[in-house]
Amino acid sequence: MEVTTKPTHGIELDTSLVKKLLVDFLRDEMHNAGFTKGVVGLSGGVDSAVVMALATEALGKDNVLAIMMPYRMSSKASLRDAQVLVNELGIMSEEVDISAMVDMYLQAYPDSDNVRKGNLMARQRMIVLYDISARDNALVIGTSNKTELLLGYGTLFGDTASALNPIGDLYKSQVWQLAAALGIPKQIIDKKPTADLWEGQTDEGELGFTYKQVDELLYHMIDERHTPEELVELGFDTAFIEKVKRLVQRNQYKRRPPLIAKVSHRTLNVDFRYARDWGI
Amino acid sequence: MEVTTKPTHGIELDTSLVKKLLVDFLRDEMHNAGFTKGVVGLSGGVDSAVVMALATEALGKDNVLAIMMPYRMSSKASLRDAQVLVNELGIMSEEVDISAMVDMYLQAYPDSDNVRKGNLMARQRMIVLYDISARDNALVIGTSNKTELLLGYGTLFGDTASALNPIGDLYKSQVWQLAAALGIPKQIIDKKPTADLWEGQTDEGELGFTYKQVDELLYHMIDERHTPEELVELGFDTAFIEKVKRLVQRNQYKRRPPLIAKVSHRTLNVDFRYARDWGI
Repeated sequence: MEVTTKPTHGIELDTSLVKKLLVDFLRDEMHNAGFTKGVVGLSGGVDSAVVMALATEALGKDNVLAIMMPYRMSSKASLRDAQVLVNELGIMSEEVDISAMVDMYLQAYPDSDNVRKGNLMARQRMIVLYDISARDNALVIGTSNKTELLLGYGTLFGDTASALNPIGDLYKSQVWQLAAALGIPKQIIDKKPTADLWEGQTDEGELGFTYKQVDELLYHMIDERHTPEELVELGFDTAFIEKVKRLVQRNQYKRRPPLIAKVSHRTLNVDFRYARDWGI
Repeated sequence: MEVTTKPTHGIELDTSLVKKLLVDFLRDEMHNAGFTKGVVGLSGGVDSAVVMALATEALGKDNVLAIMMPYRMSSKASLRDAQVLVNELGIMSEEVDISAMVDMYLQAYPDSDNVRKGNLMARQRMIVLYDISARDNALVIGTSNKTELLLGYGTLFGDTASALNPIGDLYKSQVWQLAAALGIPKQIIDKKPTADLWEGQTDEGELGFTYKQVDELLYHMIDERHTPEELVELGFDTAFIEKVKRLVQRNQYKRRPPLIAKVSHRTLNVDFRYARDWGI
């Protein structure tokens, strides 16, 4: 029998321990919040596939719902991959085409660039997920990983919005490790990560570095708290360190609630935070 | 010259001091974030009117944009009141009708109840505000007051979404005080608060108590930290205390970022919080 005390060794996961931690997390927090059902937006990518598999194990296949939300230009292969996973897990799914909602708005703003269009789509998908969760008395389970959250590579009030996020403390490289351990279909694990906003888009092409590179750097920068000087000694490039540090700093606002002007002596999110303050 | 040491005395505001605090807050935080422009969703109600007036004073009238976002069933009187304020402040405004975006989705879910419809509208408005803020390189200035935020009487990722919120630490009763001091048009201050989701809807009708009643209770419960026993001694009804306390507790999730499962020793929003951790 393997004895482990830590779920991570550097960036290497103890996948069986982490799987157990995350399944327990979903089960406990769902029930603590008074819910039994979860909904997950399934894109065909590895992050949502891992979350879907964890949620199915935690809640049971009758208590999870996969929502596919293609835009008219979304990759058909991604949708097929999502369907493969749905079949393999034996779960229910629902498809909501967001094209009309998105295009109706774009008619008024035809000059929108790709960033604005991408945010618009991510937020329309959030609306669908939250509406279905209200209909089904379910919680939205999030699919943003630690790499994306740190770099701000996601849409505020869009794909980063959720009630519970089981993979927000896992780097993308760690999500891949867990995916393999969970038996996620190979074509989902092997495909190039993409937000699927235009033909041929890849995360790594847009970011200008690979997940493997940035995860190693983030791990040493954030988790190991190394200084820039130490990071250079470890072999990381100075310009790369600066670029990543700037991204993490500049996108802090996406990870915090709105900033409220302090007037009283008990301000929300500053001095007043039920449940810490109010028992239970 | 009036000398004041505290911006609040019980629920009574020192309106000139609070006005100065909030104008400084908007100016400082806007510039700290590297922005000069703000956008505000203007409904015709008192909260957004107060925020609009504060933002205009803080940033200058060329640096604020009022966005009116009526749904086809929205009150025409509210839109007119918003226009009155825009004229009075001499600011720019833009109208975006959300009817098509909302109705396109409702076609797929015709059985949606009023709560789901209200959330849908609030979230479509968030999408518009955030898209326009991206177009104009501006920040979204929020309009949720402390009463709404504590009671959870608002839509998560909808009207509660913003970058900066100048009135999130003011109870509704205090917003009214500030509105009068700011010279907000009388018809805006005097109208019954409403989310304007259906004809004749009022906040107080839906909540089952008045803002004046609940603000007094919340002030003693949250700001003064009185126990239920002490609140009863102060003359508050036991059932009312229980009802309000339950609302505050149950809606805590709307005031916090998504809950992330902890795996590593530096988890987002738990152990890692730039800027506190990373200087500047």
